[in-house]
Amino acid sequence: MRTLEKESGTTVLRQTTEYQPPRSWRTWLIGRPLRTADAPNQAIGKAVGLAVFASDALSSTAYATDEILFVLAAAGAVAFVYALPIALAIVALLTIVTLSYEQTIHAYPDGGGAYIVARDNLGEFPAQMAGGALLTDYILTVAVSVASGVAQLTSAYPSLSPYRVLLSVGLVLLMMLVNLRGVRESGAILAIPSYFFLAMMLLTVGSGFMQYVTGSLGTVEHPPHLGREPLMRSVTLFLLLHAFSNGTTALTGVEAISNGVTAFKEPRSRNAGITLIWMSAILGTLFLGITFLAGRIAATPSESETLISQLARTTYDGRGLMYLITIAATTLILTMAANTAFAGFPRLSALLAADGFLPRQLTYRGSRLVYSRGIVALALIASLLIALFQASVNALIPLYAIGVFLSFTLSQAGMAHRWWKTGRLSAGQEAHERSSVLRHDPRWAFKMVINGLGSVCTAMVMLIFAVTKFHDGAWIVILLIPILVAMFSAIHYHYRDLAARLSLEQYGGPARISRQRVILAVSGVHRGTLTALRYARTLSDDITAVHICIDQNEVESLRSKWESWGDGVRLVVLDSPYRLLLEPLLGYIEQIAAQRQPNEIITIIVPQFVPRRWWHNFLHTQTAMWLRLMLLFKPGIVITDVPYQIE
Amino acid sequence: MRTLEKESGTTVLRQTTEYQPPRSWRTWLIGRPLRTADAPNQAIGKAVGLAVFASDALSSTAYATDEILFVLAAAGAVAFVYALPIALAIVALLTIVTLSYEQTIHAYPDGGGAYIVARDNLGEFPAQMAGGALLTDYILTVAVSVASGVAQLTSAYPSLSPYRVLLSVGLVLLMMLVNLRGVRESGAILAIPSYFFLAMMLLTVGSGFMQYVTGSLGTVEHPPHLGREPLMRSVTLFLLLHAFSNGTTALTGVEAISNGVTAFKEPRSRNAGITLIWMSAILGTLFLGITFLAGRIAATPSESETLISQLARTTYDGRGLMYLITIAATTLILTMAANTAFAGFPRLSALLAADGFLPRQLTYRGSRLVYSRGIVALALIASLLIALFQASVNALIPLYAIGVFLSFTLSQAGMAHRWWKTGRLSAGQEAHERSSVLRHDPRWAFKMVINGLGSVCTAMVMLIFAVTKFHDGAWIVILLIPILVAMFSAIHYHYRDLAARLSLEQYGGPARISRQRVILAVSGVHRGTLTALRYARTLSDDITAVHICIDQNEVESLRSKWESWGDGVRLVVLDSPYRLLLEPLLGYIEQIAAQRQPNEIITIIVPQFVPRRWWHNFLHTQTAMWLRLMLLFKPGIVITDVPYQIE
Repeated sequence: MRTLEKESGTTVLRQTTEYQPPRSWRTWLIGRPLRTADAPNQAIGKAVGLAVFASDALSSTAYATDEILFVLAAAGAVAFVYALPIALAIVALLTIVTLSYEQTIHAYPDGGGAYIVARDNLGEFPAQMAGGALLTDYILTVAVSVASGVAQLTSAYPSLSPYRVLLSVGLVLLMMLVNLRGVRESGAILAIPSYFFLAMMLLTVGSGFMQYVTGSLGTVEHPPHLGREPLMRSVTLFLLLHAFSNGTTALTGVEAISNGVTAFKEPRSRNAGITLIWMSAILGTLFLGITFLAGRIAATPSESETLISQLARTTYDGRGLMYLITIAATTLILTMAANTAFAGFPRLSALLAADGFLPRQLTYRGSRLVYSRGIVALALIASLLIALFQASVNALIPLYAIGVFLSFTLSQAGMAHRWWKTGRLSAGQEAHERSSVLRHDPRWAFKMVINGLGSVCTAMVMLIFAVTKFHDGAWIVILLIPILVAMFSAIHYHYRDLAARLSLEQYGGPARISRQRVILAVSGVHRGTLTALRYARTLSDDITAVHICIDQNEVESLRSKWESWGDGVRLVVLDSPYRLLLEPLLGYIEQIAAQRQPNEIITIIVPQFVPRRWWHNFLHTQTAMWLRLMLLFKPGIVITDVPYQIE
Repeated sequence: MRTLEKESGTTVLRQTTEYQPPRSWRTWLIGRPLRTADAPNQAIGKAVGLAVFASDALSSTAYATDEILFVLAAAGAVAFVYALPIALAIVALLTIVTLSYEQTIHAYPDGGGAYIVARDNLGEFPAQMAGGALLTDYILTVAVSVASGVAQLTSAYPSLSPYRVLLSVGLVLLMMLVNLRGVRESGAILAIPSYFFLAMMLLTVGSGFMQYVTGSLGTVEHPPHLGREPLMRSVTLFLLLHAFSNGTTALTGVEAISNGVTAFKEPRSRNAGITLIWMSAILGTLFLGITFLAGRIAATPSESETLISQLARTTYDGRGLMYLITIAATTLILTMAANTAFAGFPRLSALLAADGFLPRQLTYRGSRLVYSRGIVALALIASLLIALFQASVNALIPLYAIGVFLSFTLSQAGMAHRWWKTGRLSAGQEAHERSSVLRHDPRWAFKMVINGLGSVCTAMVMLIFAVTKFHDGAWIVILLIPILVAMFSAIHYHYRDLAARLSLEQYGGPARISRQRVILAVSGVHRGTLTALRYARTLSDDITAVHICIDQNEVESLRSKWESWGDGVRLVVLDSPYRLLLEPLLGYIEQIAAQRQPNEIITIIVPQFVPRRWWHNFLHTQTAMWLRLMLLFKPGIVITDVPYQIE
């Protein structure tokens, strides 16, 4: 396929190269390469959508109650009665956030993650904050979900406990491979784990509740040791707020649907909105149910056994088949939750990179059409985090959810500002934003209040978070997000600055070159040198060969050889008393460059023989390479490698 | 200083650049750079010479007796009576080797290490064997001497025992630094440790002997546990030979003087010869004395306490000041012995490299005029060995001394062959070898017998070695030396082959270039591209700009920009459906190269913008670098980087 176009004197040829990457171990590992045109495009309904996007949110019920009890345990088991009221407060917060996000889904039918909403409505700086917060939390989603999944496993099989870091990191790397291969996020097969978990949890909580009603519900047999010794006598407000903020991890993942509106069937906003409300209802019910039953069965928060495990073995009378199925379902959904971060992190970092806030390489889609570099980066950082925190959910939790709530706050604030803007438009008038269209909405004031309330509530929660969990590790995130924002700005500045300096606007074109001076680096007189000399001849008549002399005994032989082979070209021998090779040559070049005329260019020709085998390179000083690296920084100099292949 | 010479039409300019390396952390660590002309040249007398060259040989008395007893312990303490007869046999061997080397010193007044003697008299293959054997043994000298020095320390201070690997490696790295700084091997200050050790040993052995004569010599109090449990009932010939071969480590270092003849004052051969005989006499006396007294005081070989320590605390009645001084002297001389390897290894590897058996880089003298790369290589390999063998002298010994004896054998065989050659010359006739002059010697037959005897004896010892210590680790060295020889040959072949292929003999000069085709890689149209295009214009009128298209949306904008700025140059857009950048470009270049005329050359111009800060490079795909690396291997292609510095 060739198109030939000739316009205004310039020939433009277009050619499709069918060049495929060769089969290699990569093909075996992640599958055959895909064409750009092969990108999938498939819409899903509400039932599948619920399963696909809910795994992150629903899976938080597997650890949120544990984390409330962990904090309350500081005041002794007697404080556990506060768990249910705290859970109710969290469900109230969930309701507000859900209503708030339902509005976002309708306003951004093309997907309205916190970064996009903040960028459109609040400006660059809040958008960068949202971006930094979300990236941090995607990493923590992987670390926390995988650690919690492995904790379920080690609850069932305590002998696996010493290997939990290894198991967790192995799971993360497996997920990396699966995602490099490219999972269809919208594939119906991904719905199975979510519904499996949902069914098992409804069964467990339901039968627990039935036993409670009929009075046959017992308490946990052989409860695990309490994670920590009681430290204080009385329940303080600080303790309750701390427990509350730990529990709000239940809300993580609620925003997932608003990112993925495009995956739904038309009318997509409506379908996505209904799915969101369903998801929140299920999440709230499960969370309340688990917290309620945890109190009835006198469950104990512990690093060695999760609450789900205690609940399951109490309702199912021991570690039988039903118990194991429940644990398997929980582990599976936690893994799926980590997997959603593997979809979100690379996509967000590609978005940030496309806006010039992260290295451009992150926008590159690998052979399987996924943002492979983002996937690998996420896996490596999450693995590091898991190793540092020894795969302890309880140790990771203080870092978690601050980012989520910061992005909630920014996103809702952006939406509130957006409604205010639409309120100022008259009916029928339209205004265009980068990612959506503003239309007058008669209910703008009501909607602004909903989103405003969401924003204020989540901001308050974030503050409570920052204060109560500061010492436990939240300070890391509070420090990290500004650092990320500073990094985004530095990168953005670099790209913008570079674009301006490379821009052709108001550029007169480079000055004409009227003269070339050629410097030929000569280490010895051999065929490679002569090949380079011959090339130099095609460039200019003003050629100087330069030799750096370290061993005095070699000069005479070099000179006589040059006299017979040097074609009359001037040879400069530089004595180097300190046995340095590059520096004297660079000094000489600088000396020549200082005398350079404005329309004169200096070409440095470096003869480079290319050995037949790669290991031969170890047998030669790679002078040419170093010279090139050091010369790159000198203006008005062009570096030419004349390779001479040894056949 | 400029010399201008014009001969047969070629101008040769000679210029001395006073370019000095800048001051940096290196200056602080190893001192200011030295000029090539600053190389020291200082001759030493017999007294200093003895001290300088004897440390390696004399220090072996610190572990040789231990190693004999270690083997005999397998048959129980009763077998220790065989130690003295074995030591006598070793001293007899020492006598033969000494006489043999005395002849070498006179024949090679410019230094006659085993490598040089083998190369001159036996040919390339034996020389390579000698080289491999010596390199191996230099490494082991460092490992064994340092490990033994640290073992002396931990005998005095057992609490240091857990840190012996750390101490040993630290000592090796310290020695590396000292040698990178450059010690004058001939400095009189280096004589102090040797004479200090000599004095302390003569005092210890002397007073032990006096106590024995007067009957007041006791036995070791609280002897350490025997290193190993007795395994067999009776003393076998194998056991005795094994003990003998372990004891011959006493002979390591005897060859040192023959390497360093040039350091002596004139008449240097005579002075060096006398020094050798003195050294051997002292070595033999000390070794016999220590072994004799070890039997009298009922010393036990052990990893936790050295024999020198047991002897010293028995003669000096406990761990008093005299004991500590003796231990300090022993540790010091062992460190000095390791230091001789730091002089020998880099010098030998530079010699091998100059002959093309090792990478040429090893001949390069660093800023302090020492073969810095060899020094660093030795330190790293020896540290690794110490770490692998947990700094255990007893574990390292089986690897040691095989190399020394192989080089003894080859060196003496070479000398014997040399005498045979001189015997065939008539009186007054001379023949020239690479490193010495052959003259008729009336006593050639006698000398041939001496060297021949030395060669046969050391060959036998080597065989005994290989058999008795094979299982303990000698197999490693028996495997390693042929591998080294194979490596030397492969490297040598590469250099010779390369020289032949680069040689100008029977070379008609490269074909003329009558036409240049230029391919300009274009990632986008910006100032850097235009600068490169302007340069391309100076090379040829046949220019093709090539753009690899990954994102279809960018093509239109690129085309229109090229139409206004491309100066009428043809643009080829290659669609890359698999999003590969380099491969389609390489494929296109290959396609063009296939149509290449014989006297046509293809220049690939790669515009490369150079960011202001190094970390900016992480924000750009380094396409130019990868392209260059892949293009190097294609013949008939020249690669030109046109840098565009962002100021």
